[in-house]
Amino acid sequence: MAHRLIECVPNFSEGRNAQTVDAIGQAIASVAQVRVLRSETDADHNRSVITFAGTPEAVRQAALRGIAEAVQRIDLSTHSGVHPRIGAADVVPFVPLEGVTLEECAALAHDVGREVWETLRVPVYFYEAAARSSDRAPLEKLRAGHLAPDLGGPALHPTAGACVIGARKILIAFNIVLNTADLSIARAIAKKIRASSGGFRFVKALGLLLASRNLAQVSLNLTDYEQTPLHLVFEAVAAEALALGLEIVDTEIIGLVPAKALEEAAAHFLRCRNFHSGLVIENALLPLTEKV
Amino acid sequence: MAHRLIECVPNFSEGRNAQTVDAIGQAIASVAQVRVLRSETDADHNRSVITFAGTPEAVRQAALRGIAEAVQRIDLSTHSGVHPRIGAADVVPFVPLEGVTLEECAALAHDVGREVWETLRVPVYFYEAAARSSDRAPLEKLRAGHLAPDLGGPALHPTAGACVIGARKILIAFNIVLNTADLSIARAIAKKIRASSGGFRFVKALGLLLASRNLAQVSLNLTDYEQTPLHLVFEAVAAEALALGLEIVDTEIIGLVPAKALEEAAAHFLRCRNFHSGLVIENALLPLTEKV
Repeated sequence: MAHRLIECVPNFSEGRNAQTVDAIGQAIASVAQVRVLRSETDADHNRSVITFAGTPEAVRQAALRGIAEAVQRIDLSTHSGVHPRIGAADVVPFVPLEGVTLEECAALAHDVGREVWETLRVPVYFYEAAARSSDRAPLEKLRAGHLAPDLGGPALHPTAGACVIGARKILIAFNIVLNTADLSIARAIAKKIRASSGGFRFVKALGLLLASRNLAQVSLNLTDYEQTPLHLVFEAVAAEALALGLEIVDTEIIGLVPAKALEEAAAHFLRCRNFHSGLVIENALLPLTEKV
Repeated sequence: MAHRLIECVPNFSEGRNAQTVDAIGQAIASVAQVRVLRSETDADHNRSVITFAGTPEAVRQAALRGIAEAVQRIDLSTHSGVHPRIGAADVVPFVPLEGVTLEECAALAHDVGREVWETLRVPVYFYEAAARSSDRAPLEKLRAGHLAPDLGGPALHPTAGACVIGARKILIAFNIVLNTADLSIARAIAKKIRASSGGFRFVKALGLLLASRNLAQVSLNLTDYEQTPLHLVFEAVAAEALALGLEIVDTEIIGLVPAKALEEAAAHFLRCRNFHSGLVIENALLPLTEKV
């Protein structure tokens, strides 16, 4: 049987109140045929990211329940955190995993957005592959606050703000921590490597300060790791840091990472001249485990 | 349905005559339900490694056909190459992949060995998990030539030598090329890092000279990559080379490599502090793709 699987990676504007984050997670997990793959909370960002997957209909239900719970519990008017945000249920992307097209994920985003506006009265922006026009597609543009929502508005919800809902390809979210408390350095490196200021085409980057560790961080989104590889971006940040006499302290993966990105990073760092994915035993066996 | 899968990675003492290597590969691939995963030939080593997998009975048949073809075609009395060898079908390990124990692979090795001696009159040594006693288990001991075969002998076959057949866990074969033509350096580094002279417990290593590139190579077998990781051994060789003012030119994977070894290498080099295999999307989805 062919699977039809969609991933959803909602970002909620709460990373300090564990009870709120738990309640949102439980609302999502209450849908049968949905599996919560990862849940992570960052107090500095004051933000939680819950990664889940399942059939299209199950993912639709779970996304709506999670958004409703967040809208009810999170009050943006008393909110602070280093990560930019526009809503309680801040960003809700749908990602095709198996047997589903990006267009189907965009249609799902429109369906969920309509229900969010109609039932919760939270204005909705559509972004990336679900955007109503290409100039409205980038998340940064919507966050800038000059554009009216696609549904509802122009006034945002008094406590829950707006909800940015969309469809996109698999994205790698990756944070790199530097051995400095100087935020301006992380910002300068982010600016050098991101697409919007002439860096790598498929990289979005922000400089942030992690108050809990008193260290600056380059927070990255790789929107097409097959064209701009993870290891290349890592090496570029390391080189920029080194040029300033700094080092990378450590890094972290947010959400999930595709196996291929790690295989290629390993091959790069191990200087493997004959690598291709067919050399990985699990990949080489796939046809056999399906056939025998 | 649960799969029962065994891998077999025979090493044949021919890496220069393509016709011979092709004939051996075709003999193996002629068995239904066997899949040849990789075939590689090294002229300097004068050696070919064919990696295949399938059901236990299919793998047994394919191994016997490959050995018979090699015994008929390869004449060791006129053989030269930088890699040590004792037979035409030099080493034939069986590796448990799915639903099969190491003990079952050892039983298969004994069965294949008996047939090799009885039908081809090539003496057989059993090694690793198939060894008749623990002091006969290491391949190096059998290659030294002081021990009589387990089946047949003491005289070896006039053209095909002996055949070393055994069972073992998954092994990573990995070659590291240095920017020097000085074989003694590769030998000294190999000696430092291998278990037999006090190095890493699960590393076997040889220094070899690649005539075709005029470069020295450290040729490695990692016999338990979960305990002695690939990236750790790579870094140790790089550090030893650096201490001598040398560098790693490139590396190559022989046969296949487990996904987990590459994931962990990537996490190490990317300095990822929160890595575990559940962060890889394909791993996280496994329960869902089986359930939905």
